[in-house]
Amino acid sequence: MKIGQATIKDIARELNLSASTISRALKDYPGISDETKKKVKEVAEKLNYRPNAIALSLRKSRSYTIGVIIPEVVHFFFSTVISGIEEVAFSRGYNVILTQTNEKLEREKSSINTMLSNQIDGFMISFSKETSDFDHFSQLLEQNYPIVFFDRVPDLDGAVNVIVDDYQGAYDATKHLIEQGYNTIAHLAGPKNLKICIERERGYRDALKAHQMPIREEFILECADGTPEHSKEITRKLIANFADKPDAIFANNDMVAAGAMMACKEAGLRIPEDVGIVGFSDWQICTLVDPSLSSVYQPGFQIGSKATELLLDMIEKKISADQIQSPVVLNTKLIMRKSSKKRE
Amino acid sequence: MKIGQATIKDIARELNLSASTISRALKDYPGISDETKKKVKEVAEKLNYRPNAIALSLRKSRSYTIGVIIPEVVHFFFSTVISGIEEVAFSRGYNVILTQTNEKLEREKSSINTMLSNQIDGFMISFSKETSDFDHFSQLLEQNYPIVFFDRVPDLDGAVNVIVDDYQGAYDATKHLIEQGYNTIAHLAGPKNLKICIERERGYRDALKAHQMPIREEFILECADGTPEHSKEITRKLIANFADKPDAIFANNDMVAAGAMMACKEAGLRIPEDVGIVGFSDWQICTLVDPSLSSVYQPGFQIGSKATELLLDMIEKKISADQIQSPVVLNTKLIMRKSSKKRE
Repeated sequence: MKIGQATIKDIARELNLSASTISRALKDYPGISDETKKKVKEVAEKLNYRPNAIALSLRKSRSYTIGVIIPEVVHFFFSTVISGIEEVAFSRGYNVILTQTNEKLEREKSSINTMLSNQIDGFMISFSKETSDFDHFSQLLEQNYPIVFFDRVPDLDGAVNVIVDDYQGAYDATKHLIEQGYNTIAHLAGPKNLKICIERERGYRDALKAHQMPIREEFILECADGTPEHSKEITRKLIANFADKPDAIFANNDMVAAGAMMACKEAGLRIPEDVGIVGFSDWQICTLVDPSLSSVYQPGFQIGSKATELLLDMIEKKISADQIQSPVVLNTKLIMRKSSKKRE
Repeated sequence: MKIGQATIKDIARELNLSASTISRALKDYPGISDETKKKVKEVAEKLNYRPNAIALSLRKSRSYTIGVIIPEVVHFFFSTVISGIEEVAFSRGYNVILTQTNEKLEREKSSINTMLSNQIDGFMISFSKETSDFDHFSQLLEQNYPIVFFDRVPDLDGAVNVIVDDYQGAYDATKHLIEQGYNTIAHLAGPKNLKICIERERGYRDALKAHQMPIREEFILECADGTPEHSKEITRKLIANFADKPDAIFANNDMVAAGAMMACKEAGLRIPEDVGIVGFSDWQICTLVDPSLSSVYQPGFQIGSKATELLLDMIEKKISADQIQSPVVLNTKLIMRKSSKKRE
């Protein structure tokens, strides 16, 4: 056996499995048992098989297709990002394929392999809530695949990241509530492994500090799954458990804000007179709920278009990753609506 | 020149263009002028070049990837369909790639070509609002590509279609409004080229007829772009222009219903006391608006999973398209909430 030239067929012969099973096991596809995957990978390593060899050789011919991997397509924010991506991609002659990870690490890895098999020219990735180590990204970066990460980005050398200024957005939202005369501002936070959520919480804390207001840990509650139902439940308890209830809520996203709004109304509290509420993302629901919801606008379209410009410039060798000042940070904007305007 | 063996290089030589330009022109990719596309296609026809030859040959090896082409990923309905697709696909060892057409026919065609280049095993398609002729689908069907159409389906021989019972859903919604004591029920309709919208309107009309209620054409208004803003405007006029205003509205979708709700509230009408409102699709916003919105639930997840089961059975040759009784019709369900319950 010549070193470095083992094929899938060699592995198949060694294990008495079909070439198709070997191929799928190497790509971490679903439908193959973990045990088989393990065996296949061990033999692949023993024979010095290089699973990305095909993808690498195919890369020499351009497919004019870029692959986008996102947590969930249903998110209004991601859909605006996709619009920005497509706008730039189509105008420069590229097509776009998408996969969603459903917030699962395993699907993220398998999406990367699907994309590799599909000869895409480059990746745009926003990672899942489950992703906490970045080895699968490091491998791609080491092989010089053009990748741009956006919104949820890894802390990796050489990664090109496009993000929004979550810190400033949260700071502005909290400052606005303070200026409207609210005294006790609670925060419904997001999951702690996402940097965007940590940044939003940090902006909230710093705004309170800057205005000499106490930070009360009992009023900072994690609403990790980000649904209105969960937030409604948390807000109910928040209202019931404290003699000095919070009179304002800054929520990590608009769905969470909408849930909080429902719980407040249910408790007979008037919005914005008794409780002020501000969300984050400025989704379409902000103008559909009653009263209309103040929120921090994230420039989704611009994130998508900026990230795509960078990616295509990298693919077309107009620029290399190390020439890009990363992260690229885009500004948020507070949109004030009825839910937080106690003072006119 | 041997008939049937012309390559992209032959066309490129004839036209003095690069092979890459020829390839992209043949695939209707964006970024190539219509004039060039026309020239390339003429020469390709003259030389008897067959653009799908590569894709066809590649099809012999399974990629374990299916391609989904949908109008817009932001639709809550489509996102539930995608979940159903992924559930079945992953459990049977397939990955899923998506493209969105943004309701544009050109992008639909270019998505099909991207997918073909990417060696997918089969297609799931819900077509764009712009699509009115189906030649691009007929071509795929003639070449025996496994395809399942869902929700927005073409009237084509040999097509396997999975749909929901839009007619019955609309009928049930209208009947419910009648039974709640509403007398003059308006309909905010969808675009006329989508069969789903025609079916919903037909269900509305038949329910009125069956209950000996007059059909008043001036109360059937098209809200073609389906946004709350547009619907709000139309509803404002509907309320202002008639002495005998409608006292109920059945809307083609939930966004349109939400817009109608806003216009009614703005005019000082109480919901459900003065005006009853029912939407269609049962999106997440139904429980976020105030009062909560009655709507017709569409089994998105089941559409996705059923369509995928059929597609994978076709790919794996367990069944052929002509053995499937098409269309496969799934039931809707009326979800009654506050917006239409005048009687308790």
